[in-house]
Amino acid sequence: MSLLVVGSLALDTVETPFGSVQDALGGSAMYISTVASYFVTPVRMVGVVGGDFPKSAIEFLESRHVDTEGLQIIEKEKTFRWGGRYHYDLNARDTLFTELNVFEKFNPVIPESYKSSTYVCLGNIDPVLQRRVVEQLHKPRLVVGDTMNFWIDRRYEELKKTLERMDILIINDSEARLLAQEPNLIRASRKILKMGPKVIIIKKGEHGALLFTEKTFFSAPAFPLENIYDPTGAGDTFAGGFIGWIARTDDLSEENLRRAVIYGSTLASFCVERFSLERFKELSYLEIQDRFHEFRRLTNFDDLTLS
Amino acid sequence: MSLLVVGSLALDTVETPFGSVQDALGGSAMYISTVASYFVTPVRMVGVVGGDFPKSAIEFLESRHVDTEGLQIIEKEKTFRWGGRYHYDLNARDTLFTELNVFEKFNPVIPESYKSSTYVCLGNIDPVLQRRVVEQLHKPRLVVGDTMNFWIDRRYEELKKTLERMDILIINDSEARLLAQEPNLIRASRKILKMGPKVIIIKKGEHGALLFTEKTFFSAPAFPLENIYDPTGAGDTFAGGFIGWIARTDDLSEENLRRAVIYGSTLASFCVERFSLERFKELSYLEIQDRFHEFRRLTNFDDLTLS
Repeated sequence: MSLLVVGSLALDTVETPFGSVQDALGGSAMYISTVASYFVTPVRMVGVVGGDFPKSAIEFLESRHVDTEGLQIIEKEKTFRWGGRYHYDLNARDTLFTELNVFEKFNPVIPESYKSSTYVCLGNIDPVLQRRVVEQLHKPRLVVGDTMNFWIDRRYEELKKTLERMDILIINDSEARLLAQEPNLIRASRKILKMGPKVIIIKKGEHGALLFTEKTFFSAPAFPLENIYDPTGAGDTFAGGFIGWIARTDDLSEENLRRAVIYGSTLASFCVERFSLERFKELSYLEIQDRFHEFRRLTNFDDLTLS
Repeated sequence: MSLLVVGSLALDTVETPFGSVQDALGGSAMYISTVASYFVTPVRMVGVVGGDFPKSAIEFLESRHVDTEGLQIIEKEKTFRWGGRYHYDLNARDTLFTELNVFEKFNPVIPESYKSSTYVCLGNIDPVLQRRVVEQLHKPRLVVGDTMNFWIDRRYEELKKTLERMDILIINDSEARLLAQEPNLIRASRKILKMGPKVIIIKKGEHGALLFTEKTFFSAPAFPLENIYDPTGAGDTFAGGFIGWIARTDDLSEENLRRAVIYGSTLASFCVERFSLERFKELSYLEIQDRFHEFRRLTNFDDLTLS
């Protein structure tokens, strides 16, 4: 099934205790599209970059069968840049700088050929823009969206309107608490379900992810990794793996949503093993499948064989 | 199989956003013994209380078939008291007071009839005392122990000697990081495994629990609860459910250790539904079994039926 991804493309400067990179590929649309392309191609991408966006990056997207018709290139301006430094335990980070550049006036224009996309993934951008995307589409089957504390704090009313148009919200645990004004995640998810989405997925970083529907609950572990080099993009990668699997299978049953969460977690576990998108330059579909199956062993307490 | 529990008995004064209790039953041995008694009886308990320890508490233990031969009652002194206040989100708490009283000079003396116990659970007490317990025993099959940041900070060398005598260490995530001086939990667990225990269980509160052996890894979710009244004793309750199940089944295979972790999580999820040990005054074995089976549904992403 066809998949449309809208979000940011960025050049990230990242420091972790294990090294640093400068102007490395990043941004929500970049991660989501790259990762979803393991499951469904072409991925239709809408975003904006400046004239300084490396040609090699566009070639990389094309090698992944990402359709870049919707990529706006504003030659005379600069690409969105973000810089951050992670703390010793990688659970917290400081933003060192944010240069919006072309992203400041981003107006997502959906090419005609994208408008009948079946599945849509809205990366973390201004909720007003997320809504503008949905309004241009012809009845997508499923709209999945992300958001962050920045928009919850500053665009709360707009975000609420956008949530009414989302079928699935993917959000961090701290952001879920903030959005619902409720510290208990189970209650928070119930409150958010009343705002529009039929499903909420709460990402908890090293603690895994939770999936909530009105009546059910699913808990996915994080894959145990000894070496985490760079958590940047793990959340977007999760979204890319999730929506990629859904678009590939075209199956919205709860059991398939659960599988999609595990694919999201699987891809996120690969993401953090290298800086930026490096891991996806050599990651094979077979490795993804192997790790997906290892997830079963991680949570199994029922079989005698632990096979 | 026979089970020996050694630890504290306390009168707790607890404030949470949902209410408060004064001089309520608490302490690691109190929780562990009460909970383990769902699975194996009699539970042999060693601890110390003052003359002010309520008779009703001893009657309660006896109603649970906890053998109190090893309970020292020092009539002229007072029972250990602890007071704490939980924050709004229940993830953090402040200790308001600690009155060691009889606990200050606690010397665990193991009655002759307890010395051949097959299973031993050492609640969180001074590691020197934990070791003194083990030294009095005739070759137990399994020694499970808990500890906390207080002992890691102040009795590090003694704790290391005690860890050499433990088969399974049950510990919080922050304490595991502190003990191993390593922020990554996978690496931390590997370091702790070299200190003696063959198995480490890391409790992560609302994020569930992890079980590590030299070669394998198991992730258990926490049960999703909308109403958590009092987290006090949840960690000890986990230990009680874990060791209770092990002692009942006398099976140290990895798959049974995993089941024991789920029983620990199951019991902990009941503990926090009421203040102090209140929930265990009416909890039935059938409720435990029902919730154990619900845990399977929480993590299942494989079956088509989600049965």
